[in-house]
Amino acid sequence: MCWFPDLYPGNMFCAIMTDSNKELLYEINSPQDLKLLSPDELEEYGRQLRDFIVSELSENPGHLGSSLGALELGIALQYVYDTPGDKIVWDVGHQAYAHKIITGRRDRFSTNRKLGGISGFPSMWESEYDSFGVGHSSTSISAALGIAIGQRLNNDPHKVVAVIGDGALTGGLAYEGLNNAGVENTDLLVILNDNRMSIDKNVGAMKEYLLQMTTSGKYNNFKNKVWKSLSDYPRIRRSFQKFGNVLKHGILQQSNLFESLNFRYFGPVDGNDLRYLIKVLKDLQSIPGPKLLHILTTKGNGYIPALEDPTKWHAPGKFDPETGESISSYNDKEEPPKYQEVFGHTIVELAENNPKIVGITPAMPTGCSLDIMMEKMPDRTFDVGIAEGHAVTFSAGLATQGIIPFCNIYSSFIQRAYDNVIHDVALQKLDVVFCLDRSGIVGEDGATHQGVFDIAFFRAIPDIIISSPMNEEELRNLMYTAQQGGYGAFVIRYPKARAINKNWRTPFSSLPIGKGRLLKDGSDIALLSLGHTGNFASLVIEAAEMEGISVAHIDLRFAKPLDEELLHYAGSKFSHIITVEDGVINGGIGSAVLEFLNGNGYKSKVHMLGVPDKFIPHGKISELHHICGYDTEGILNKIKEIYEKNK
Amino acid sequence: MCWFPDLYPGNMFCAIMTDSNKELLYEINSPQDLKLLSPDELEEYGRQLRDFIVSELSENPGHLGSSLGALELGIALQYVYDTPGDKIVWDVGHQAYAHKIITGRRDRFSTNRKLGGISGFPSMWESEYDSFGVGHSSTSISAALGIAIGQRLNNDPHKVVAVIGDGALTGGLAYEGLNNAGVENTDLLVILNDNRMSIDKNVGAMKEYLLQMTTSGKYNNFKNKVWKSLSDYPRIRRSFQKFGNVLKHGILQQSNLFESLNFRYFGPVDGNDLRYLIKVLKDLQSIPGPKLLHILTTKGNGYIPALEDPTKWHAPGKFDPETGESISSYNDKEEPPKYQEVFGHTIVELAENNPKIVGITPAMPTGCSLDIMMEKMPDRTFDVGIAEGHAVTFSAGLATQGIIPFCNIYSSFIQRAYDNVIHDVALQKLDVVFCLDRSGIVGEDGATHQGVFDIAFFRAIPDIIISSPMNEEELRNLMYTAQQGGYGAFVIRYPKARAINKNWRTPFSSLPIGKGRLLKDGSDIALLSLGHTGNFASLVIEAAEMEGISVAHIDLRFAKPLDEELLHYAGSKFSHIITVEDGVINGGIGSAVLEFLNGNGYKSKVHMLGVPDKFIPHGKISELHHICGYDTEGILNKIKEIYEKNK
Repeated sequence: MCWFPDLYPGNMFCAIMTDSNKELLYEINSPQDLKLLSPDELEEYGRQLRDFIVSELSENPGHLGSSLGALELGIALQYVYDTPGDKIVWDVGHQAYAHKIITGRRDRFSTNRKLGGISGFPSMWESEYDSFGVGHSSTSISAALGIAIGQRLNNDPHKVVAVIGDGALTGGLAYEGLNNAGVENTDLLVILNDNRMSIDKNVGAMKEYLLQMTTSGKYNNFKNKVWKSLSDYPRIRRSFQKFGNVLKHGILQQSNLFESLNFRYFGPVDGNDLRYLIKVLKDLQSIPGPKLLHILTTKGNGYIPALEDPTKWHAPGKFDPETGESISSYNDKEEPPKYQEVFGHTIVELAENNPKIVGITPAMPTGCSLDIMMEKMPDRTFDVGIAEGHAVTFSAGLATQGIIPFCNIYSSFIQRAYDNVIHDVALQKLDVVFCLDRSGIVGEDGATHQGVFDIAFFRAIPDIIISSPMNEEELRNLMYTAQQGGYGAFVIRYPKARAINKNWRTPFSSLPIGKGRLLKDGSDIALLSLGHTGNFASLVIEAAEMEGISVAHIDLRFAKPLDEELLHYAGSKFSHIITVEDGVINGGIGSAVLEFLNGNGYKSKVHMLGVPDKFIPHGKISELHHICGYDTEGILNKIKEIYEKNK
Repeated sequence: MCWFPDLYPGNMFCAIMTDSNKELLYEINSPQDLKLLSPDELEEYGRQLRDFIVSELSENPGHLGSSLGALELGIALQYVYDTPGDKIVWDVGHQAYAHKIITGRRDRFSTNRKLGGISGFPSMWESEYDSFGVGHSSTSISAALGIAIGQRLNNDPHKVVAVIGDGALTGGLAYEGLNNAGVENTDLLVILNDNRMSIDKNVGAMKEYLLQMTTSGKYNNFKNKVWKSLSDYPRIRRSFQKFGNVLKHGILQQSNLFESLNFRYFGPVDGNDLRYLIKVLKDLQSIPGPKLLHILTTKGNGYIPALEDPTKWHAPGKFDPETGESISSYNDKEEPPKYQEVFGHTIVELAENNPKIVGITPAMPTGCSLDIMMEKMPDRTFDVGIAEGHAVTFSAGLATQGIIPFCNIYSSFIQRAYDNVIHDVALQKLDVVFCLDRSGIVGEDGATHQGVFDIAFFRAIPDIIISSPMNEEELRNLMYTAQQGGYGAFVIRYPKARAINKNWRTPFSSLPIGKGRLLKDGSDIALLSLGHTGNFASLVIEAAEMEGISVAHIDLRFAKPLDEELLHYAGSKFSHIITVEDGVINGGIGSAVLEFLNGNGYKSKVHMLGVPDKFIPHGKISELHHICGYDTEGILNKIKEIYEKNK
């Protein structure tokens, strides 16, 4: 079933191609090879490529839906443009698998997102065809404009294309880029890859506008007809191009939002129609100035299961490519829940009893499990689009009215709203609860997505509370505490991980702010942990005990304010203190503990375990914890090392 | 001279009113008093208010131009709306002096921006009429939407208005707010206060679009005629309002950018015409849904000197109100230059020799002195609008092409581009030089603008260089070093301050990365300073020496990487180390030094001087340094205290 049967009556790709001959796929090793293909061969190559991606991802999970949707675009761009001299900037970049495979990474594609393998996102350090490193949304227009102006300054005649999704277009950065590009004299082409989705369904006025343009616009029908009818008369068309776009400067002046920003608008066209896409892209090359091509694509195009549930198939796990059935290594009933699930159910529980609670997400309801509340309390849940800054300032506005907003954002994405947290929440002393999902190492998404900086950058802010639960009961109690209000900015950070108890629906109790827990006393070394990593510590402390090393374990629970009483205890009793955190060491919780001890005259040496001063690439979370040295093995080694040196 | 003589033929305010009777001014102590005035009295009150603001600011400097431009709006809003129940959110807020004076702060207005006085920006903690605390640009729509939805959830029938300038509208956050507000069912009114300026002239495609709408739009003329012609038939008009805006759903569907985002657009109207503004605002109250009223105002309206040079009069110093002549306490020829001036001249010098250098500013060319380069090298200088995120990612794009962008941003504004620095520059290992103006305590602009967090939040990022010059020669050499390229993200932070040498055009020399300077050796205590505050330290170290206390002084120069050699020296020789920085102590340079010493087994106690864990309000820079304890007196006291305790 295609989403837009009217738009795609002849879509060839709405079936799984399992029996095609794979010769073409393995003959194409670079865009140069691609350029030698005939139109028929190109389409056949597209089918084989799609089949390859589905097959590979069924074994090695990745971003399926958007990559299938942008497959024809990936082919068309490499076919039409002269890369790597011409520059293609993919926004976010998880839709760029076809691009990666065409540009020489087919045989490494099985290593996608694995430790030491290729990145799930374009990366300048991986390929000269990846013009800009991406991962977070909405950067492409700004980066592409910089590239275009850099080329101009270098007298380099190459061209630049930014490919941005309709979801990413809700980010303010994209608008800032359009606003600037509209007055710069470059030939920048922005391709708006409109599939009416980000990860979940796209939201906001811009989405509605695009939909309206797509479905009802006599304007666009007219435009397209004019354009198409001129296609047999290239000279006439070119003369229009040369002397100003007939469509722009004619009767339809300013009738389009993008044209208002000084972009020439073209479209919408079927972005899954490879032949037509190639034709349009070729045409547009001769048109000067900033241009926007609006293409319509279908997320999961060509793979029926993905068409039926695009959110689920944004990034499915392993699956059976024939049936689309998930192959999970977990039996959910036997495993503890994920922190995100605990969050998702708990906010509903709390909101049922506290009418002041609302939930806010910048376009991540499913990933963060706010979708549970969204379904039960649609009037009290707000998906504001890919707009982290707005999510935070909007929450601040709500808080002025006595509402308790739970603003639910990935740690690496709150970096995009840092000033909003300082300026609009903390400084204003407004009660906003930040539930920071994906805090710490996130694994396969890699360096762009590691949520490792938040403790350090939040700790600098006055009047903020930073907490992290060690298990689901703690998460629930922190959320319960925060919703009581009166605390100002209240951060609760938790990792992408399964928690530890199957029976997690424990009764709520209020936690004292800035109070940790002495989980176990000891005599040789004190270990202070924050958050889920405390569980790794608990395990090895038992092991160390068996080897005769007595380690006290404190769950700090709060990175700010610190539990001064417990720190006085640790500082006065132990000359060696280990801190463990799922975040950067520089300026992190270990640093905070050390500042306190130093300030209070203690001379204990603080051994800080956490993320070293490097960008951490992709790989399994457990592998990366190991490399960073704060998995169970790393912690135990540190304990033994200290003990041996000082016994 | 008025800017828009055609638009303002009957403008009454284009003269200084010095001899008016001030009775009304002193009779109005609240918006309730204002509502009792007749139209004639309102206009007379406006004249007196303008005179009062000019007179007060001539003695006690503040933001003049924008406050005069928005004076009628300030009156009209309080006259029409039922504040403080109805909420007015002023974007940025330096244009809100009339608002402040009307809402009970006339007699405290002489304390504006002074220590202990009222803030130069709206502040929720100062007045119930200030609905949201502001200072940074582009937050108003997001906050106002939050307030509106909060009211809806509380069944509170009050209204919400956001007032945003055309400059602030270039910020992506404003667009994110519009995009969300366009699909939320609130009665939010956004007033676009269009004076074609931010601090400098506004730039970008949106500005051009607004100008086009203002100057050429038959559309708007038509709209206004329809609207005005209906004004005598309120019932007919109301029926249009009820059944959908005739202007929106008629022949002009989607013909306006804001209407594309689902806002009903009204305007442009003369925002300095008080009577008409009141009429329009009253009319709009009965129109449901999100609305945008586009008003045209003149920065500095009514005060001739300010009309002639709006950039200079954005925030003039002291001046003679009769003549408009500046009254400066400095003789520029006898004083050392400001750091910003050294930056401004030096980048031109460097760019003359290095064709790869370009300058980027997010709408602050004059404040940062990039205007010097802009005038000499317009093709290599880019004012990208109030769009810090874009400024950084655009710089990153340029850097991919071998260009060396000097991205010139206030420290407190780079908070808005934190993720761009991490994700688009540092992670990509691109050569972008960040010249962080207004780093450290900035004085009268207060808590929203203090540039005190940057060392702490940048220090967490891998592969970044953070430096700070102690004087102009150091600034020049750091800039010279950075432009050689190959260093990745390179931060140079300098304060809002005069440097120390009159003869500062010293020859360039390259500085080794991560190397500080031992300025003076000593035996009792080591003092490690970063940046300009080192000069305070130098002074008191001499004084301490006279009292028999021997203090070694190290200018760290780099906060990252640290000079390990000098730190080993300090750690091995001194048991007491003082660090001095113009930034927050939590996670700052003192913390970095302590981490190093602890990591290397030194037990020295580090006494950290810097900004404590509080938001620092407005006041003179010297007063605030004193309060924070790192002015000369504070440093000397710390030296003596340590010496006395340990001798």
